[in-house]
Amino acid sequence: MRHFASDSAESYAVGVVDVARWEQYGLEDTLPFRAMWYAVPPESSSPQDCHPEFELSVVISGTASVEASGQITDIAAGSCFLLDSGEAHVIHNRSGDVPLFIFTTYWMPQAAAAAIAAGVYEGAVVAGGADEKEAVMEGAR
Amino acid sequence: MRHFASDSAESYAVGVVDVARWEQYGLEDTLPFRAMWYAVPPESSSPQDCHPEFELSVVISGTASVEASGQITDIAAGSCFLLDSGEAHVIHNRSGDVPLFIFTTYWMPQAAAAAIAAGVYEGAVVAGGADEKEAVMEGAR
Repeated sequence: MRHFASDSAESYAVGVVDVARWEQYGLEDTLPFRAMWYAVPPESSSPQDCHPEFELSVVISGTASVEASGQITDIAAGSCFLLDSGEAHVIHNRSGDVPLFIFTTYWMPQAAAAAIAAGVYEGAVVAGGADEKEAVMEGAR
Repeated sequence: MRHFASDSAESYAVGVVDVARWEQYGLEDTLPFRAMWYAVPPESSSPQDCHPEFELSVVISGTASVEASGQITDIAAGSCFLLDSGEAHVIHNRSGDVPLFIFTTYWMPQAAAAAIAAGVYEGAVVAGGADEKEAVMEGAR
């Protein structure tokens, strides 16, 4: 078991946002995604971001007001939000005093397709049999 | 942007643990992993679990006392822990009053290998060029 303590991670500033990327942990051969924590101070917003990776985020503390596709949606602590490939987004912290802290994973669409074809969970691999092996080869073409 | 509210997710009991699996959201073609939330009540423990999937968890609230490989490690809210493929584990909540709430992702080792070969992030794909395409084919064999 490996432990990743958020309060001792190396981080850097992106605008007002404090970002701790998981590249520091050397998990490039283990994870089927990239990951980071980030913190948005009270009454602040992230720079607008837009990238081809899907992005799934978990709100750990505070409330994320996620601006994307012309809407702002409040996401409470414990809840998650998924941004599409290429979906521009700004993360606002509209609280006057509560920091917003988020854990995020992101991945390219073709990485997900390849992982799914290879079998993401045990049942997918066992259940698939010969069909699954064929799917793996199809997924790579 | 899709919003997944933890407090309205469908869940079921596994021992004393309340489990909300993400299969309910129909993201099987989008995520390179499976996911779930789970809650361990105060002074309670999960059943022992052991599976071939890697498992990366984020503690959202409370403190997880993770028993694995002969050790118990306390993981604070905001921090993460990664269990190896095949590493037996029990999650204890040793608090007398604070519920433990966790978001977990899990994936088979070969799914990660396939995702990595396909390029997990934009830079991996752009930087790889022809070598990357070859790596994708190698990863599927």
